[in-house]
Amino acid sequence: MPTPKYNIASIPADGIGIEVVAATIKVIEHLAQTLKTFEIEFTHFPWGSDYYKKEGRYLPDDVLDVLRKYDACLFGAVGAPDIPDHISLWGLLLALRGPMQLYANVRPVRPFPGTRVRFAESKPSDIDWVLVRENSEGEYAGQGGRSHLNQPWETATEVAIFTRIGIERIMRFAFETARSRPRKLLTVVTKSNSMRNGMVLWDEIAREVAADYPDVQWDKMLVDAMTVRMVVKPESLDTIVGTNLHMDILSDLAAALAGSIGVAPSSNLDPTRKNPSIFEPVHGSAFDITGKGIANPVATIWSAAEMLRWVGEASAADTLMTALEEVCRKGVLTPDLGGTATTESVATAVCKEIEV
Amino acid sequence: MPTPKYNIASIPADGIGIEVVAATIKVIEHLAQTLKTFEIEFTHFPWGSDYYKKEGRYLPDDVLDVLRKYDACLFGAVGAPDIPDHISLWGLLLALRGPMQLYANVRPVRPFPGTRVRFAESKPSDIDWVLVRENSEGEYAGQGGRSHLNQPWETATEVAIFTRIGIERIMRFAFETARSRPRKLLTVVTKSNSMRNGMVLWDEIAREVAADYPDVQWDKMLVDAMTVRMVVKPESLDTIVGTNLHMDILSDLAAALAGSIGVAPSSNLDPTRKNPSIFEPVHGSAFDITGKGIANPVATIWSAAEMLRWVGEASAADTLMTALEEVCRKGVLTPDLGGTATTESVATAVCKEIEV
Ligand SMILES: CC(C)[C@H](C(=O)O)[C@@H](O)C(=O)O
Ligand SMILES: CC(C)[C@H](C(=O)O)[C@@H](O)C(=O)O
Repeated sequence: MPTPKYNIASIPADGIGIEVVAATIKVIEHLAQTLKTFEIEFTHFPWGSDYYKKEGRYLPDDVLDVLRKYDACLFGAVGAPDIPDHISLWGLLLALRGPMQLYANVRPVRPFPGTRVRFAESKPSDIDWVLVRENSEGEYAGQGGRSHLNQPWETATEVAIFTRIGIERIMRFAFETARSRPRKLLTVVTKSNSMRNGMVLWDEIAREVAADYPDVQWDKMLVDAMTVRMVVKPESLDTIVGTNLHMDILSDLAAALAGSIGVAPSSNLDPTRKNPSIFEPVHGSAFDITGKGIANPVATIWSAAEMLRWVGEASAADTLMTALEEVCRKGVLTPDLGGTATTESVATAVCKEIEV
Repeated sequence: MPTPKYNIASIPADGIGIEVVAATIKVIEHLAQTLKTFEIEFTHFPWGSDYYKKEGRYLPDDVLDVLRKYDACLFGAVGAPDIPDHISLWGLLLALRGPMQLYANVRPVRPFPGTRVRFAESKPSDIDWVLVRENSEGEYAGQGGRSHLNQPWETATEVAIFTRIGIERIMRFAFETARSRPRKLLTVVTKSNSMRNGMVLWDEIAREVAADYPDVQWDKMLVDAMTVRMVVKPESLDTIVGTNLHMDILSDLAAALAGSIGVAPSSNLDPTRKNPSIFEPVHGSAFDITGKGIANPVATIWSAAEMLRWVGEASAADTLMTALEEVCRKGVLTPDLGGTATTESVATAVCKEIEV
């Protein structure tokens, strides 16, 4: 059997995104060279805010055709101080998630060595969650507008669009995820007491899909009450699914409660595998620390481990995560986690740990 | 000067709402009799899920005219196990907040005696927040619909509607609130990186209104990042303002972090004073403990103290809050806070404490 080879599109984009992706590629290339069980090649794409300033757009018109030639994408972070966030995010990140139908955004959350669980009463073992975020529609449909600009009666709308197909596929994905985990426990987040259309449809489809998964124990939470449950009864949760906006909010909260958003990874998956999935840290481009060499690469390295798992290299992913956790356990931590390590020295330490 | 007299509409509605409102009325009547500085009369309205089952609607058609005869309303909680939540909530609570233009929902959050702050590292003194929620529009405009029912291509929309007038008035209210507090600090919550219409308008108006409040220090947070800040840097926050949905979520989180949602009060204010404001606990109708006499009345008593403050009886409100905190400090707590007190015994203890 020939060694499998993976072609990865690298899109570091802006700010510390560039730094953490560079560090991660170094680690992954080293992993491949050490294990010799797979080959990997990264192709760099310069899309980001500098590209936008030169070209007047964040992405070329044929971006989807270009990216479809790759097995997966590793993404950094987009956003620059002199460009409104909604321009940069809709120009690049949100212009890929939706159009490529990367409908499942998956965010594992558990305490990570080197970070501290933020609860007064919980044990770190109380948190072992997988957050599944609908990633292609809902509040991020991008619809709405403004009328009567600058008049006292100016009105602006944001239109969330939910479809039966969109809800059903993410719900099945979530039930499958729950089924694959030891506790087989799923919590469906909604807000159907005040949102009477899309959220009620969400509830109905949850009930329909649940009928196909009698082995999965599931319940329903309102998004506001869910924040309370995450703080007060973390051990009662396992797999969690919700809308694009609800899970955007809850996944940041989850990462903070578990220890740090600086280590949180995320996968934008097309479970049909028609499009390459995108793996990215949850954190942003952080221009305040850009260029200082102190950005925490853990979230991106963890995201790359999820990428390896997705393309079929689960054992390499395990090796990488073991090394990454060991490095953090030994206290090789960037300043955001109270250490003095640099982006570079964390990456080097992970490479060394892989040798062992 | 004759003693002022206040006429209060009492709407206990459903479940434990009925129990906690009864206990609160007892306390407030006792307070008035003891202080003799004001008179108060409660008029009972039977609106709620039982009324709905008999009458086919939650509220009579002339409800706004009826309520406008009162100085304020004390509300319990609405919702019954055999009625879909969106029917009961839009039938009663949301049918009052919007139409009565109670545009400012105010939720003070601070550690309360008898509850425990849920942070690993923060001191109780780190939390002293006022959350200001836009309460009349936005995601709760009630617009949207479903089409192609039950077809595979079924689509459902939720339309959030923001108006310049609606945003500006809540923004001014928030800046005024911040100005009235010692730290003069305001955080404006938004999500303008992904919502390009209403949320961008929200940002623009924040900047415009801020120009009139040079003495207030303000900053902007994205709602997802805000959850992280509440967990990690609670001491950096004071007054917080945001949309109807964002603050619905953040106020539950805030209450949980500070100690317990069981003590959280809320005021639905019409700052123009054209309509009577509504005061209510944040918790729901909790049918699982209804009828057991163990519902925690603290949130409703605290809400009634806010009501007294609003109608002009600040000193009576202070007396009540001192008594309420003292009772909790002494450990007269309902089971949700780890005690063995009943709704009745907490109310009795507060009455006794007022005598002293
Ligand atoms: C950058 C931003 C548009 C994005 C989102 O809101 O989805 C981010 O917060 C995330 O969680 O991936
Ligand atoms: C009961 C429900 C409709 C309500 C809301 O979502 O506004 C509640 O959660 C609140 O915070 O007042």
